[in-house]
Amino acid sequence: MSTVTHRTAPTQFVEAEGVRYAYRRLGSGGEVPLVLLQHFTGNLDNWDPALVDALAAEREVILVDYPGVASSTGTPATTIAEMAQQMITFTAALKLEQIDLLGFSIGGFAAQDMALIRPRLIRRLVLAGTGPKGAPGMHGWRKDIETHARAEVPTGGDLLYIFFAHTDTSQAKGKEFLGRFMARTEGRDTPSSLASRDAQYDAVLEWGIPNHSALQRLTGIQCPTLIIQGDGDLMIPTKASHLMAGLIPDARIRIYPDAAHASLFQYPAEVAKDVNEFLA
Amino acid sequence: MSTVTHRTAPTQFVEAEGVRYAYRRLGSGGEVPLVLLQHFTGNLDNWDPALVDALAAEREVILVDYPGVASSTGTPATTIAEMAQQMITFTAALKLEQIDLLGFSIGGFAAQDMALIRPRLIRRLVLAGTGPKGAPGMHGWRKDIETHARAEVPTGGDLLYIFFAHTDTSQAKGKEFLGRFMARTEGRDTPSSLASRDAQYDAVLEWGIPNHSALQRLTGIQCPTLIIQGDGDLMIPTKASHLMAGLIPDARIRIYPDAAHASLFQYPAEVAKDVNEFLA
Repeated sequence: MSTVTHRTAPTQFVEAEGVRYAYRRLGSGGEVPLVLLQHFTGNLDNWDPALVDALAAEREVILVDYPGVASSTGTPATTIAEMAQQMITFTAALKLEQIDLLGFSIGGFAAQDMALIRPRLIRRLVLAGTGPKGAPGMHGWRKDIETHARAEVPTGGDLLYIFFAHTDTSQAKGKEFLGRFMARTEGRDTPSSLASRDAQYDAVLEWGIPNHSALQRLTGIQCPTLIIQGDGDLMIPTKASHLMAGLIPDARIRIYPDAAHASLFQYPAEVAKDVNEFLA
Repeated sequence: MSTVTHRTAPTQFVEAEGVRYAYRRLGSGGEVPLVLLQHFTGNLDNWDPALVDALAAEREVILVDYPGVASSTGTPATTIAEMAQQMITFTAALKLEQIDLLGFSIGGFAAQDMALIRPRLIRRLVLAGTGPKGAPGMHGWRKDIETHARAEVPTGGDLLYIFFAHTDTSQAKGKEFLGRFMARTEGRDTPSSLASRDAQYDAVLEWGIPNHSALQRLTGIQCPTLIIQGDGDLMIPTKASHLMAGLIPDARIRIYPDAAHASLFQYPAEVAKDVNEFLA
């Protein structure tokens, strides 16, 4: 049994098409590896260790920095379509023939595009705190959320504001998360640049341009899909998950109570259980 | 306090535009009356007395036969748009300036059209076991459901098959419902004709013709909306409710477990509580 955890997994690198991708790989088991696609400005450290370790207990898990973000070289994507192609390139560089894919927030945008462009690559899909291209309420974030999310040097307070419900109970869970995600002391990833932040927000806005026709893309997602979100997401409206559940042919949906954007960091054990059961 | 119940409320009649509408009116309280729009081939007796009485305990409730159905004269509508206009005519005949509206199944189709055509008429909307015009999976029913739903002389067995989940627990609840809805012995409504059945199924199929663009209509429903459905509806895919929750601007959704099409007849007390709270 491997004793490598999210706290100790070394950052590795693989090169493809002129980009040096930073990634971490841990865990074993499962039919295919599970690739996790990160949220806005997030790097390898921004995943909740409790979530990653609970997933890695039953399967191989791969974390990655998008090009131009944190320790990956290259130019950050300014559209989700480009980001999806970058992640397809990354999976090809690791010679992965088939994967399970969990995308959180903008990672969920890219995951949808990957499932549409490379259906044979994706065995099962998990869409967390995310929404469809062109859907109502997706064209950028409300002002207070945008301000905290785009902070030049994000603090724990910013993360609590944008990620957790503004209730005592959710904020308390958020503080536990802050403790966990700072626990790794050696070999931490580098912070994301402001340039990558701005490129990613361009991609967020481009994805969210109102476009009812684009919703029909969801009907083309062929793989079984698990949709999870907090019941009061302040960043991406929770109704976006219902919309995806309404149009993706083989979808199930799980809404977590008293939770905002980061339901998977608020309930890491429950989410890992739901995801592991779905992927088993 | 009135002691009139679903079992004793007299069938009344009101005439408008050449149609004699059969209806029943009971209960008191609430800001505005709650009008219930019935399912495929259903008449005044087909509502669950337990549901109607629990709603009527807190508000005025109005049941009605569509034109050409059971005791109402006139020609049955062959499109939902026409059915919605008929029900607008009915509310005008009763001089109702504003109503709450609960539509079940095809009644929910008509309720959506009424909310779009007469937004000032509808204060709050409840959509039960229903789905949007043009949505995936809405173009008619699967063969076994269609056969039982279109039976020339529907039996209790047909209702159990199409309305309740094919589990022992749901079927047992279904048998309780059968007992309740047969309890009225005096002044029962007349059965619906085969002509009205065929006209209504034309309307079902017309509503369900695949049309992604038509889904955008949902974004125009202005009133607060409660969406309820069983978790395994065999007649209208449960994902239709998620789709409505994803696109109706002010919507909430409640999915009942171990239930098929008639979740509101399986859980009359719970549904009445949820509806009463929503309308309060």
